[in-house]
Amino acid sequence: MNILLLPELDNNQSSINITERSQISHIQQVLELKVGDSLKVGSVNGRLGTAVIESVSDTKLKLGCLNLDIMPPSKLDLTVVLALPRPKVLRRLIMDMTAIGVAEIILVNSYRTDKSYWQSPMLNRIDEFVTEGLQQGVDTIAPNIQLKKRFKPFVEDELSLWAKDRSLVVAHPYSPLSFNQYIEQSGLPQVLCIGAEGGWIDYEVGLLQEHGCQPIHIGSRILRTEAAVNVLCGRYL
Amino acid sequence: MNILLLPELDNNQSSINITERSQISHIQQVLELKVGDSLKVGSVNGRLGTAVIESVSDTKLKLGCLNLDIMPPSKLDLTVVLALPRPKVLRRLIMDMTAIGVAEIILVNSYRTDKSYWQSPMLNRIDEFVTEGLQQGVDTIAPNIQLKKRFKPFVEDELSLWAKDRSLVVAHPYSPLSFNQYIEQSGLPQVLCIGAEGGWIDYEVGLLQEHGCQPIHIGSRILRTEAAVNVLCGRYL
Repeated sequence: MNILLLPELDNNQSSINITERSQISHIQQVLELKVGDSLKVGSVNGRLGTAVIESVSDTKLKLGCLNLDIMPPSKLDLTVVLALPRPKVLRRLIMDMTAIGVAEIILVNSYRTDKSYWQSPMLNRIDEFVTEGLQQGVDTIAPNIQLKKRFKPFVEDELSLWAKDRSLVVAHPYSPLSFNQYIEQSGLPQVLCIGAEGGWIDYEVGLLQEHGCQPIHIGSRILRTEAAVNVLCGRYL
Repeated sequence: MNILLLPELDNNQSSINITERSQISHIQQVLELKVGDSLKVGSVNGRLGTAVIESVSDTKLKLGCLNLDIMPPSKLDLTVVLALPRPKVLRRLIMDMTAIGVAEIILVNSYRTDKSYWQSPMLNRIDEFVTEGLQQGVDTIAPNIQLKKRFKPFVEDELSLWAKDRSLVVAHPYSPLSFNQYIEQSGLPQVLCIGAEGGWIDYEVGLLQEHGCQPIHIGSRILRTEAAVNVLCGRYL
Protein backbone atom coordinates (compact mmCIF):
# COMPACT_ATOMS: atom_id res chain seq x y z
CA MET A 1 0.00 0.00 0.00
CA ASN A 2 1.76 3.12 -1.22
CA ILE A 3 -1.24 5.38 -0.68
CA LEU A 4 -4.34 5.02 1.45
CA LEU A 5 -7.41 5.28 -0.80
CA LEU A 6 -10.15 7.44 0.75
CA PRO A 7 -13.77 7.75 -0.41
CA GLU A 8 -14.73 10.68 -2.65
CA LEU A 9 -14.29 13.89 -0.65
CA ASP A 10 -16.36 17.07 -0.56
CA ASN A 11 -14.71 20.31 -1.58
CA ASN A 12 -12.73 21.76 1.31
CA GLN A 13 -13.26 18.67 3.46
CA SER A 14 -10.33 18.72 5.90
CA SER A 15 -10.79 15.51 7.90
CA ILE A 16 -12.25 12.01 7.52
CA ASN A 17 -12.86 8.91 9.61
CA ILE A 18 -11.53 5.56 8.33
CA THR A 19 -13.47 2.51 9.54
CA GLU A 20 -12.16 -0.13 7.11
CA ARG A 21 -10.37 -2.58 9.43
CA SER A 22 -7.87 -3.79 6.80
CA GLN A 23 -6.76 -0.20 6.22
CA ILE A 24 -6.49 0.57 9.93
CA SER A 25 -4.46 -2.55 10.66
CA HIS A 26 -2.19 -1.93 7.65
CA ILE A 27 -1.45 1.60 8.86
CA GLN A 28 -0.75 0.43 12.40
CA GLN A 29 1.02 -2.87 11.81
CA VAL A 30 2.73 -2.65 8.43
CA LEU A 31 3.40 1.08 8.10
CA GLU A 32 3.78 1.37 11.91
CA LEU A 33 2.34 4.90 11.91
CA LYS A 34 0.90 6.61 14.98
CA VAL A 35 -0.92 9.81 15.95
CA GLY A 36 0.80 12.85 14.46
CA ASP A 37 2.37 10.92 11.58
CA SER A 38 1.69 11.96 8.00
CA LEU A 39 0.82 9.51 5.22
CA LYS A 40 0.14 9.57 1.48
CA VAL A 41 -3.53 9.42 0.51
CA GLY A 42 -5.74 9.68 -2.55
CA SER A 43 -9.45 10.21 -2.92
CA VAL A 44 -11.40 7.88 -5.23
CA ASN A 45 -11.73 9.58 -8.64
CA GLY A 46 -9.91 12.57 -7.18
CA ARG A 47 -6.47 13.84 -6.31
CA LEU A 48 -3.44 12.54 -4.42
CA GLY A 49 -1.84 14.18 -1.40
CA THR A 50 -1.18 13.79 2.31
CA ALA A 51 -3.05 13.55 5.60
CA VAL A 52 -2.10 13.42 9.27
CA ILE A 53 -3.33 10.82 11.77
CA GLU A 54 -5.32 12.67 14.46
CA SER A 55 -6.58 9.73 16.50
CA VAL A 56 -6.65 5.96 16.20
CA SER A 57 -8.40 2.94 17.73
CA ASP A 58 -8.93 -0.61 16.45
CA THR A 59 -12.17 0.42 14.76
CA LYS A 60 -11.70 4.06 13.81
CA LEU A 61 -8.88 6.20 12.54
CA LYS A 62 -9.32 9.95 12.12
CA LEU A 63 -7.29 11.72 9.46
CA GLY A 64 -6.93 15.51 9.42
CA CYS A 65 -4.94 18.16 7.56
CA LEU A 66 -6.15 16.66 4.25
CA ASN A 67 -4.10 18.25 1.50
CA LEU A 68 -4.87 16.73 -1.89
CA ASP A 69 -3.46 18.74 -4.76
CA ILE A 70 -1.72 16.25 -7.07
CA MET A 71 -3.48 14.91 -10.17
CA PRO A 72 -3.44 11.09 -10.45
CA PRO A 73 -1.22 9.70 -13.24
CA SER A 74 -2.71 9.25 -16.73
CA LYS A 75 -4.07 5.87 -17.69
CA LEU A 76 -2.33 3.92 -20.45
CA ASP A 77 -4.08 4.03 -23.83
CA LEU A 78 -4.67 0.31 -23.46
CA THR A 79 -7.51 -2.20 -23.26
CA VAL A 80 -6.56 -5.72 -22.14
CA VAL A 81 -8.85 -8.55 -23.25
CA LEU A 82 -7.89 -11.38 -20.90
CA ALA A 83 -9.15 -14.96 -20.93
CA LEU A 84 -10.64 -15.45 -17.46
CA PRO A 85 -7.83 -17.12 -15.45
CA ARG A 86 -7.92 -19.43 -12.44
CA PRO A 87 -9.52 -17.60 -9.50
CA LYS A 88 -6.27 -17.97 -7.56
CA VAL A 89 -4.35 -15.75 -9.99
CA LEU A 90 -7.23 -13.34 -10.72
CA ARG A 91 -6.44 -11.17 -7.69
CA ARG A 92 -2.83 -10.52 -8.64
CA LEU A 93 -3.72 -9.99 -12.32
CA ILE A 94 -6.40 -7.38 -11.56
CA MET A 95 -4.11 -5.74 -9.01
CA ASP A 96 -1.14 -5.60 -11.39
CA MET A 97 -3.13 -4.34 -14.39
CA THR A 98 -4.71 -1.66 -12.17
CA ALA A 99 -1.35 -0.64 -10.67
CA ILE A 100 0.32 -0.39 -14.08
CA GLY A 101 -2.52 1.83 -15.37
CA VAL A 102 -4.49 -0.27 -17.88
CA ALA A 103 -7.57 1.81 -18.81
CA GLU A 104 -9.96 -1.04 -19.57
CA ILE A 105 -9.97 -4.76 -18.71
CA ILE A 106 -12.30 -7.23 -20.42
CA LEU A 107 -12.43 -10.69 -18.83
CA VAL A 108 -13.64 -13.06 -21.51
CA ASN A 109 -14.44 -16.73 -21.74
CA SER A 110 -12.05 -19.03 -23.62
CA TYR A 111 -11.77 -22.73 -24.42
CA ARG A 112 -9.21 -23.18 -21.65
CA THR A 113 -11.27 -21.24 -19.06
CA ASP A 114 -12.83 -23.87 -16.83
CA LYS A 115 -16.59 -23.27 -16.50
CA SER A 116 -16.26 -23.26 -12.71
CA TYR A 117 -14.14 -20.07 -12.87
CA TRP A 118 -17.29 -18.08 -13.72
CA GLN A 119 -18.92 -19.27 -10.46
CA SER A 120 -15.95 -18.27 -8.31
CA PRO A 121 -16.64 -15.94 -5.36
CA MET A 122 -13.42 -14.14 -6.39
CA LEU A 123 -15.40 -12.49 -9.20
CA ASN A 124 -17.41 -10.64 -6.53
CA ARG A 125 -14.21 -9.29 -5.03
CA ILE A 126 -12.88 -7.52 -8.14
CA ASP A 127 -13.54 -4.05 -6.64
CA GLU A 128 -11.40 -5.01 -3.65
CA PHE A 129 -8.53 -6.12 -5.94
CA VAL A 130 -8.86 -2.84 -7.87
CA THR A 131 -8.56 -0.88 -4.60
CA GLU A 132 -5.42 -2.87 -3.76
CA GLY A 133 -4.03 -2.08 -7.21
CA LEU A 134 -4.77 1.64 -6.91
CA GLN A 135 -3.15 1.75 -3.44
CA GLN A 136 -0.13 -0.11 -4.86
CA GLY A 137 0.20 1.95 -8.04
CA VAL A 138 -0.55 5.37 -6.46
CA ASP A 139 -3.67 6.08 -8.49
CA THR A 140 -7.28 7.00 -7.68
CA ILE A 141 -9.20 6.08 -10.84
CA ALA A 142 -10.33 2.47 -11.32
CA PRO A 143 -10.02 0.83 -14.72
CA ASN A 144 -13.26 0.01 -16.50
CA ILE A 145 -13.77 -3.76 -16.02
CA GLN A 146 -16.25 -5.87 -17.96
CA LEU A 147 -17.05 -9.59 -17.96
CA LYS A 148 -17.96 -11.32 -21.23
CA LYS A 149 -19.15 -14.88 -20.72
CA ARG A 150 -19.47 -15.67 -24.44
CA PHE A 151 -16.32 -15.42 -26.54
CA LYS A 152 -17.74 -15.60 -30.08
CA PRO A 153 -20.47 -12.93 -29.75
CA PHE A 154 -18.02 -10.66 -27.93
CA VAL A 155 -15.46 -10.93 -30.75
CA GLU A 156 -17.97 -10.79 -33.61
CA ASP A 157 -20.27 -8.05 -32.27
CA GLU A 158 -18.05 -5.85 -30.09
CA LEU A 159 -14.32 -6.31 -30.67
CA SER A 160 -14.84 -6.34 -34.45
CA LEU A 161 -16.13 -2.73 -34.26
CA TRP A 162 -13.01 -1.53 -32.45
CA ALA A 163 -10.81 -2.56 -35.37
CA LYS A 164 -12.14 0.43 -37.35
CA ASP A 165 -10.20 2.92 -35.26
CA ARG A 166 -7.98 1.00 -32.88
CA SER A 167 -4.97 -1.29 -33.35
CA LEU A 168 -5.39 -4.77 -31.87
CA VAL A 169 -2.98 -7.65 -31.23
CA VAL A 170 -3.36 -11.14 -29.81
CA ALA A 171 -0.44 -12.74 -27.94
CA HIS A 172 0.28 -16.13 -29.49
CA PRO A 173 3.62 -17.95 -29.14
CA TYR A 174 3.45 -19.46 -32.64
CA SER A 175 2.95 -16.18 -34.50
CA PRO A 176 5.77 -15.28 -36.93
CA LEU A 177 5.71 -11.57 -35.94
CA SER A 178 7.29 -10.47 -32.65
CA PHE A 179 5.79 -7.76 -30.42
CA ASN A 180 8.95 -5.69 -30.96
CA GLN A 181 8.58 -5.93 -34.75
CA TYR A 182 4.93 -4.93 -34.47
CA ILE A 183 5.80 -1.88 -32.32
CA GLU A 184 8.56 -0.80 -34.73
CA GLN A 185 6.15 -0.96 -37.66
CA SER A 186 2.91 0.29 -36.13
CA GLY A 187 3.58 1.70 -32.64
CA LEU A 188 2.00 0.36 -29.47
CA PRO A 189 -1.35 -1.35 -30.11
CA GLN A 190 -4.39 -0.08 -28.20
CA VAL A 191 -5.83 -3.53 -27.51
CA LEU A 192 -3.92 -6.57 -26.22
CA CYS A 193 -5.70 -9.97 -26.20
CA ILE A 194 -3.95 -12.30 -23.76
CA GLY A 195 -4.84 -15.96 -23.10
CA ALA A 196 -4.70 -17.52 -19.65
CA GLU A 197 -2.73 -20.67 -18.81
CA GLY A 198 -2.37 -22.78 -21.94
CA GLY A 199 -3.05 -19.75 -24.16
CA TRP A 200 -5.70 -19.38 -26.83
CA ILE A 201 -6.63 -22.35 -29.03
CA ASP A 202 -6.16 -22.02 -32.81
CA TYR A 203 -9.89 -21.40 -33.36
CA GLU A 204 -9.79 -18.43 -30.97
CA VAL A 205 -6.65 -16.93 -32.54
CA GLY A 206 -8.27 -17.44 -35.96
CA LEU A 207 -11.49 -15.67 -34.94
CA LEU A 208 -9.61 -12.76 -33.33
CA GLN A 209 -7.41 -12.46 -36.43
CA GLU A 210 -10.45 -12.51 -38.72
CA HIS A 211 -11.85 -9.55 -36.76
CA GLY A 212 -8.76 -7.39 -36.88
CA CYS A 213 -6.26 -8.70 -34.31
CA GLN A 214 -2.66 -9.18 -35.43
CA PRO A 215 -1.01 -12.20 -33.73
CA ILE A 216 2.34 -11.40 -32.09
CA HIS A 217 4.82 -13.40 -30.00
CA ILE A 218 7.26 -12.46 -27.25
CA GLY A 219 9.84 -15.19 -27.92
CA SER A 220 9.99 -18.96 -27.56
CA ARG A 221 9.91 -18.84 -23.78
CA ILE A 222 6.45 -19.41 -22.30
CA LEU A 223 5.64 -17.23 -19.30
CA ARG A 224 3.05 -17.49 -16.53
CA THR A 225 -0.02 -15.37 -17.35
CA GLU A 226 0.92 -12.81 -14.69
CA ALA A 227 4.46 -12.53 -16.02
CA ALA A 228 3.24 -12.21 -19.64
CA VAL A 229 0.72 -9.52 -18.68
CA ASN A 230 3.42 -7.47 -16.93
CA VAL A 231 5.90 -7.98 -19.78
CA LEU A 232 3.34 -6.85 -22.38
CA CYS A 233 1.80 -3.97 -20.38
CA GLY A 234 5.27 -2.87 -19.23
CA ARG A 235 6.04 -1.77 -22.79
CA TYR A 236 3.53 1.10 -22.32
CA LEU A 237 5.41 2.65 -19.36
CA MET B 1 4.92 -27.12 -16.84
CA ASN B 2 5.53 -26.76 -20.57
CA ILE B 3 8.33 -29.33 -20.68
CA LEU B 4 9.32 -32.13 -18.33
CA LEU B 5 12.91 -31.57 -17.22
CA LEU B 6 14.93 -34.81 -17.23
CA PRO B 7 18.36 -35.39 -15.66
CA GLU B 8 21.44 -35.16 -17.90
CA LEU B 9 21.27 -37.98 -20.44
CA ASP B 10 24.00 -40.19 -21.89
CA ASN B 11 24.59 -40.07 -25.62
CA ASN B 12 22.12 -42.29 -27.44
CA GLN B 13 20.12 -42.97 -24.25
CA SER B 14 16.64 -43.87 -25.52
CA SER B 15 14.64 -44.32 -22.33
CA ILE B 16 14.56 -43.09 -18.72
CA ASN B 17 12.64 -43.75 -15.50
CA ILE B 18 11.06 -40.78 -13.70
CA THR B 19 10.66 -41.24 -9.93
CA GLU B 20 9.98 -37.62 -8.88
CA ARG B 21 6.43 -37.78 -7.49
CA SER B 22 5.56 -34.17 -8.31
CA GLN B 23 6.46 -34.75 -11.96
CA ILE B 24 4.51 -38.03 -12.14
CA SER B 25 1.40 -36.53 -10.58
CA HIS B 26 1.61 -33.43 -12.82
CA ILE B 27 1.77 -35.64 -15.93
CA GLN B 28 -1.15 -37.77 -14.77
CA GLN B 29 -3.42 -35.21 -13.14
CA VAL B 30 -2.74 -31.86 -14.81
CA LEU B 31 -1.60 -32.91 -18.29
CA GLU B 32 -3.85 -36.02 -18.11
CA LEU B 33 -1.41 -38.07 -20.22
CA LYS B 34 -1.36 -41.86 -20.34
CA VAL B 35 0.69 -44.72 -21.79
CA GLY B 36 1.40 -44.11 -25.48
CA ASP B 37 1.08 -40.31 -25.24
CA SER B 38 3.96 -38.08 -26.27
CA LEU B 39 5.19 -35.09 -24.25
CA LYS B 40 7.77 -32.33 -24.52
CA VAL B 41 10.95 -32.89 -22.53
CA GLY B 42 14.36 -31.34 -22.01
CA SER B 43 17.52 -32.71 -20.48
CA VAL B 44 19.30 -30.57 -17.85
CA ASN B 45 22.09 -28.62 -19.60
CA GLY B 46 21.12 -30.39 -22.83
CA ARG B 47 18.57 -30.27 -25.62
CA LEU B 48 14.79 -30.12 -25.91
CA GLY B 49 12.59 -32.66 -27.66
CA THR B 50 9.92 -35.30 -27.11
CA ALA B 51 9.40 -38.62 -25.35
CA VAL B 52 6.64 -41.21 -25.17
CA ILE B 53 5.16 -42.65 -21.97
CA GLU B 54 5.87 -46.40 -21.96
CA SER B 55 4.55 -47.29 -18.51
CA VAL B 56 3.30 -45.51 -15.43
CA SER B 57 2.57 -46.17 -11.75
CA ASP B 58 2.31 -43.83 -8.75
CA THR B 59 6.02 -44.12 -8.10
CA LYS B 60 7.63 -44.69 -11.50
CA LEU B 61 7.04 -43.46 -15.01
CA LYS B 62 9.05 -44.87 -17.90
CA LEU B 63 9.70 -42.64 -20.90
CA GLY B 64 10.93 -44.08 -24.21
CA CYS B 65 11.52 -42.90 -27.80
CA LEU B 66 13.62 -40.03 -26.42
CA ASN B 67 14.26 -37.63 -29.29
CA LEU B 68 16.11 -34.51 -28.14
CA ASP B 69 17.43 -32.46 -31.05
CA ILE B 70 16.43 -28.83 -30.33
CA MET B 71 18.91 -26.42 -28.75
CA PRO B 72 17.56 -24.55 -25.69
CA PRO B 73 16.91 -20.82 -26.22
CA SER B 74 19.76 -18.35 -25.60
CA LYS B 75 19.96 -16.68 -22.22
CA LEU B 76 19.43 -12.91 -22.02
CA ASP B 77 22.62 -10.86 -21.66
CA LEU B 78 21.41 -9.83 -18.22
CA THR B 79 22.43 -10.05 -14.57
CA VAL B 80 19.73 -9.12 -12.03
CA VAL B 81 20.93 -7.92 -8.63
CA LEU B 82 17.82 -8.28 -6.47
CA ALA B 83 17.37 -7.25 -2.83
CA LEU B 84 16.37 -10.49 -1.06
CA PRO B 85 12.55 -10.34 -0.93
CA ARG B 86 10.06 -11.86 1.48
CA PRO B 87 10.34 -15.66 1.32
CA LYS B 88 6.73 -15.85 0.14
CA VAL B 89 7.51 -14.02 -3.10
CA LEU B 90 10.97 -15.55 -3.61
CA ARG B 91 9.57 -18.64 -5.34
CA ARG B 92 7.69 -16.72 -8.02
CA LEU B 93 10.56 -14.28 -8.55
CA ILE B 94 13.14 -17.04 -9.09
CA MET B 95 10.69 -18.93 -11.29
CA ASP B 96 9.87 -15.88 -13.43
CA MET B 97 13.48 -14.73 -13.85
CA THR B 98 14.45 -18.28 -14.81
CA ALA B 99 11.56 -18.63 -17.26
CA ILE B 100 12.30 -15.29 -18.92
CA GLY B 101 15.97 -16.28 -19.40
CA VAL B 102 17.99 -14.10 -16.97
CA ALA B 103 21.58 -15.41 -17.13
CA GLU B 104 22.65 -14.52 -13.60
CA ILE B 105 20.74 -13.67 -10.40
CA ILE B 106 22.44 -12.13 -7.36
CA LEU B 107 20.31 -12.05 -4.22
CA VAL B 108 21.75 -9.33 -2.02
CA ASN B 109 21.05 -7.91 1.41
CA SER B 110 19.42 -4.48 1.66
CA TYR B 111 18.21 -2.16 4.42
CA ARG B 112 14.62 -3.25 3.83
CA THR B 113 15.48 -6.98 3.76
CA ASP B 114 14.38 -8.33 7.13
CA LYS B 115 17.22 -10.33 8.74
CA SER B 116 14.88 -13.30 9.16
CA TYR B 117 14.65 -13.67 5.37
CA TRP B 118 18.22 -15.03 5.33
CA GLN B 119 17.17 -17.84 7.69
CA SER B 120 14.18 -18.87 5.60
CA PRO B 121 13.99 -22.53 4.53
CA MET B 122 12.85 -21.18 1.13
CA LEU B 123 16.50 -20.35 0.41
CA ASN B 124 17.26 -24.08 0.43
CA ARG B 125 14.59 -24.63 -2.20
CA ILE B 126 16.01 -22.33 -4.88
CA ASP B 127 17.02 -25.27 -7.12
CA GLU B 128 13.43 -26.48 -7.03
CA PHE B 129 12.13 -23.01 -8.08
CA VAL B 130 14.70 -22.92 -10.89
CA THR B 131 13.46 -26.31 -12.14
CA GLU B 132 9.89 -24.94 -12.10
CA GLY B 133 11.08 -21.90 -14.05
CA LEU B 134 12.90 -24.01 -16.65
CA GLN B 135 9.85 -26.25 -17.08
CA GLN B 136 7.66 -23.14 -17.46
CA GLY B 137 9.99 -21.28 -19.83
CA VAL B 138 10.98 -24.29 -21.98
CA ASP B 139 14.69 -24.15 -21.16
CA THR B 140 17.27 -26.61 -19.79
CA ILE B 141 20.05 -24.37 -18.48
CA ALA B 142 19.78 -22.91 -14.98
CA PRO B 143 20.75 -19.30 -14.33
CA ASN B 144 23.81 -18.76 -12.16
CA ILE B 145 22.45 -17.77 -8.72
CA GLN B 146 24.53 -16.26 -5.93
CA LEU B 147 23.67 -15.02 -2.43
CA LYS B 148 25.47 -11.97 -1.02
CA LYS B 149 24.68 -11.36 2.63
CA ARG B 150 26.65 -8.11 2.85
CA PHE B 151 25.59 -5.26 0.58
CA LYS B 152 28.50 -2.83 0.96
CA PRO B 153 31.38 -5.29 0.33
CA PHE B 154 29.45 -6.78 -2.59
CA VAL B 155 29.01 -3.36 -4.23
CA GLU B 156 32.50 -2.05 -3.44
CA ASP B 157 34.52 -5.19 -4.18
CA GLU B 158 32.54 -7.04 -6.85
CA LEU B 159 29.93 -4.92 -8.63
CA SER B 160 32.37 -2.01 -8.92
CA LEU B 161 34.63 -4.18 -11.14
CA TRP B 162 31.80 -4.98 -13.55
CA ALA B 163 31.38 -1.29 -14.37
CA LYS B 164 34.61 -1.44 -16.42
CA ASP B 165 33.02 -3.43 -19.20
CA ARG B 166 29.30 -3.70 -18.46
CA SER B 167 26.45 -1.18 -18.32
CA LEU B 168 24.59 -1.10 -14.99
CA VAL B 169 21.34 0.52 -13.86
CA VAL B 170 19.47 0.68 -10.56
CA ALA B 171 15.67 0.96 -10.56
CA HIS B 172 14.66 3.93 -8.42
CA PRO B 173 11.29 5.72 -8.72
CA TYR B 174 12.77 9.15 -7.94
CA SER B 175 15.43 9.10 -10.65
CA PRO B 176 15.04 11.82 -13.32
CA LEU B 177 15.99 9.42 -16.17
CA SER B 178 13.44 6.88 -17.42
CA PHE B 179 14.37 3.34 -18.47
CA ASN B 180 13.15 4.14 -21.99
CA GLN B 181 15.41 7.20 -22.20
CA TYR B 182 18.35 5.12 -20.96
CA ILE B 183 17.69 2.41 -23.58
CA GLU B 184 17.41 5.01 -26.39
CA GLN B 185 20.75 6.55 -25.38
CA SER B 186 22.78 3.52 -24.38
CA GLY B 187 20.92 0.33 -25.35
CA LEU B 188 19.81 -2.35 -22.89
CA PRO B 189 21.97 -2.40 -19.74
CA GLN B 190 23.65 -5.68 -18.81
CA VAL B 191 23.00 -5.35 -15.09
CA LEU B 192 19.70 -4.39 -13.43
CA CYS B 193 19.67 -3.68 -9.67
CA ILE B 194 16.13 -4.03 -8.32
CA GLY B 195 15.00 -3.37 -4.74
CA ALA B 196 12.39 -5.50 -2.99
CA GLU B 197 9.25 -4.09 -1.37
CA GLY B 198 9.87 -0.50 -0.33
CA GLY B 199 12.78 -0.22 -2.78
CA TRP B 200 16.37 0.78 -2.05
CA ILE B 201 17.10 3.46 0.53
CA ASP B 202 18.96 6.61 -0.58
CA TYR B 203 22.26 5.36 0.88
CA GLU B 204 22.03 2.19 -1.24
CA VAL B 205 21.15 4.06 -4.42
CA GLY B 206 24.04 6.45 -3.67
CA LEU B 207 26.55 3.61 -3.18
CA LEU B 208 25.39 1.82 -6.35
CA GLN B 209 25.61 5.08 -8.30
CA GLU B 210 29.10 5.80 -6.96
CA HIS B 211 30.19 2.41 -8.29
CA GLY B 212 28.83 2.79 -11.79
CA CYS B 213 25.04 2.21 -11.69
CA GLN B 214 22.81 4.73 -13.45
CA PRO B 215 19.48 5.25 -11.61
CA ILE B 216 16.42 4.86 -13.87
CA HIS B 217 12.67 4.97 -13.24
CA ILE B 218 9.70 3.28 -14.94
CA GLY B 219 7.11 5.97 -14.22
CA SER B 220 5.33 7.31 -11.16
CA ARG B 221 3.37 4.15 -10.61
CA ILE B 222 4.88 1.82 -8.02
CA LEU B 223 4.69 -1.87 -8.89
CA ARG B 224 4.96 -5.05 -6.82
CA THR B 225 8.51 -6.45 -6.97
CA GLU B 226 7.35 -9.34 -9.17
CA ALA B 227 5.58 -6.99 -11.57
CA ALA B 228 8.59 -4.63 -11.72
CA VAL B 229 10.97 -7.53 -12.40
CA ASN B 230 8.81 -8.78 -15.27
CA VAL B 231 8.35 -5.26 -16.69
CA LEU B 232 12.11 -4.60 -16.61
CA CYS B 233 13.28 -8.04 -17.80
CA GLY B 234 10.51 -8.11 -20.42
CA ARG B 235 12.33 -5.35 -22.32
CA TYR B 236 15.03 -7.89 -23.21
CA LEU B 237 12.64 -10.24 -25.04
